[in-house]
Amino acid sequence: MQYAIGIDIGGTNTKLGLVTQDGVIHKSTSFSTRAAHDFDSYAKLLCKEINSIIATSSGTCLGIGIGAPNANYHTGSIEFAPNMPFVSAPMVSELQKILHLEKIYLTNDANAAALGEKIYGGAKDISDFIMITLGTGLGSGIVCDNKLLYGSTGFAGELGHTVAVPEGRLCNCGKRGCLENYASATGIKRTFYEKLAEYNGKSSIAHIPFDKMTSKIIEDAARDGDILCKECFDYTGFILGRSFADFVEFSSPKAIFLFGGLAKSRELIFEPTKASMERHLLKVFRNKVEILPSLLPSSDAAVLGASALVWETL
Amino acid sequence: MQYAIGIDIGGTNTKLGLVTQDGVIHKSTSFSTRAAHDFDSYAKLLCKEINSIIATSSGTCLGIGIGAPNANYHTGSIEFAPNMPFVSAPMVSELQKILHLEKIYLTNDANAAALGEKIYGGAKDISDFIMITLGTGLGSGIVCDNKLLYGSTGFAGELGHTVAVPEGRLCNCGKRGCLENYASATGIKRTFYEKLAEYNGKSSIAHIPFDKMTSKIIEDAARDGDILCKECFDYTGFILGRSFADFVEFSSPKAIFLFGGLAKSRELIFEPTKASMERHLLKVFRNKVEILPSLLPSSDAAVLGASALVWETL
Repeated sequence: MQYAIGIDIGGTNTKLGLVTQDGVIHKSTSFSTRAAHDFDSYAKLLCKEINSIIATSSGTCLGIGIGAPNANYHTGSIEFAPNMPFVSAPMVSELQKILHLEKIYLTNDANAAALGEKIYGGAKDISDFIMITLGTGLGSGIVCDNKLLYGSTGFAGELGHTVAVPEGRLCNCGKRGCLENYASATGIKRTFYEKLAEYNGKSSIAHIPFDKMTSKIIEDAARDGDILCKECFDYTGFILGRSFADFVEFSSPKAIFLFGGLAKSRELIFEPTKASMERHLLKVFRNKVEILPSLLPSSDAAVLGASALVWETL
Repeated sequence: MQYAIGIDIGGTNTKLGLVTQDGVIHKSTSFSTRAAHDFDSYAKLLCKEINSIIATSSGTCLGIGIGAPNANYHTGSIEFAPNMPFVSAPMVSELQKILHLEKIYLTNDANAAALGEKIYGGAKDISDFIMITLGTGLGSGIVCDNKLLYGSTGFAGELGHTVAVPEGRLCNCGKRGCLENYASATGIKRTFYEKLAEYNGKSSIAHIPFDKMTSKIIEDAARDGDILCKECFDYTGFILGRSFADFVEFSSPKAIFLFGGLAKSRELIFEPTKASMERHLLKVFRNKVEILPSLLPSSDAAVLGASALVWETL
């Protein structure tokens, strides 16, 4: 049996999986990223887990793929990562040194998700597509002509920080109006309180304070007939679809895949997004782009996506 | 001598040039596109000119490259072209049939300009860049990893129709707020009259009517100290630079080249554009993208760019 190891490095947990080319995770393990206090100790912990997987498995490890926030494929380093026990880290070179293994690849988590969709998911036969991950923020991986777009810096595909509303909502990045402040779990929550102000509290969930609010609560209320909450989804889809039209005019993908919590709201988010995208597209692109739910299983998507880095090189 | 024939099909004139790989145009000719009344007669006229160039030249013709508005590289056809004696046309297949020549390539004019910059101009050593042509409208060609981006439809790179100002100025395409309504010769003219209204006519060129106004007149007035006209350039650059930041967050180019009339206004347009782009970029991209003037000679750029289609395939 030949296998790849996929690793998902998050601010809270690091997950590892032994993955075969058919996308089956035969073994998985995880540890707290916070158990390490600097990059040296983190790298040692991680290598111990990797060696343990390799030692207890029959077959050949073809390589290791790693997905992490702020990861640079070109340099193999994590750069300026927030919420990590290290700010920057030469991940690939350090692991190569400790493990005496050549084939180690690193990319950011949204790029890994895009590759996962390509190797194991709904994009197997699609050469041009965009993967959008709707979580706390909005991540993206762009595939053009069967290859991930990295650009000159290795950081291409930061669509969550394109300007959706000029001089709009303040973003963590310091800019205003970035797409992820509208189209994400956080974005729809901000939209809810904006509409609550506009309509003077006319919602069945007006009693829930900001720090307890989630996109799931807004979704449930919308399904129960709360008009204000339904409007939150319509507005989110309107902004997202308008930005999608811009993305289509840039790279002309065949499909845009949605992944993550907000994507699970199904037609509540897909319908207004599709309508707005079509409305904002040049005629030449209309009715040619599908907006599709990711086919990756949400709990394992990050590990699968990371492991896809290995299969992609074969 | 080996050469390529570059052809620039415009609404008014069709220009042809015999080009060697060093970018020298050894022979050129042109005829009125309007001399034809349908595609059949146009194709015959064009082939007569091509055959005449080939017959009177020593050396080997390696192929023909054609740049035209609304051209589709994938299909080799012009589709929905405005201002032409034909709406749609299977250009490549028809010319192949008449000329008995295999290597004929077609792309849109902005893509051709991007290739011209890559083969003969300032982008020789740059693998990721964007070409922006600022004429009556705004055209674009996007090069990623040394290849033109065509996308699934063949129409990728319509950056002039990304939304720069939501619900902004009405565009010919039917949308509102498209970038080319702000950043182009037409765009700066519209900005001038907007500012004229705002400042109640306080400009040295307030007496010039809309149909006589040009971006060159606005430039000359700005250089003569007209504050309102200077503000027109600042605003144009602000909008253009903000969109450039979005483009960088998409494909992370090393450089953005400006070509066309407005680009000749040099620092008047480059400085506010660069400042706005930097201000709107994520930290990870700052001070890494150059905005550069095209090095293609403006009168021959379209023919050169078209001929580059041939060299690119070798």
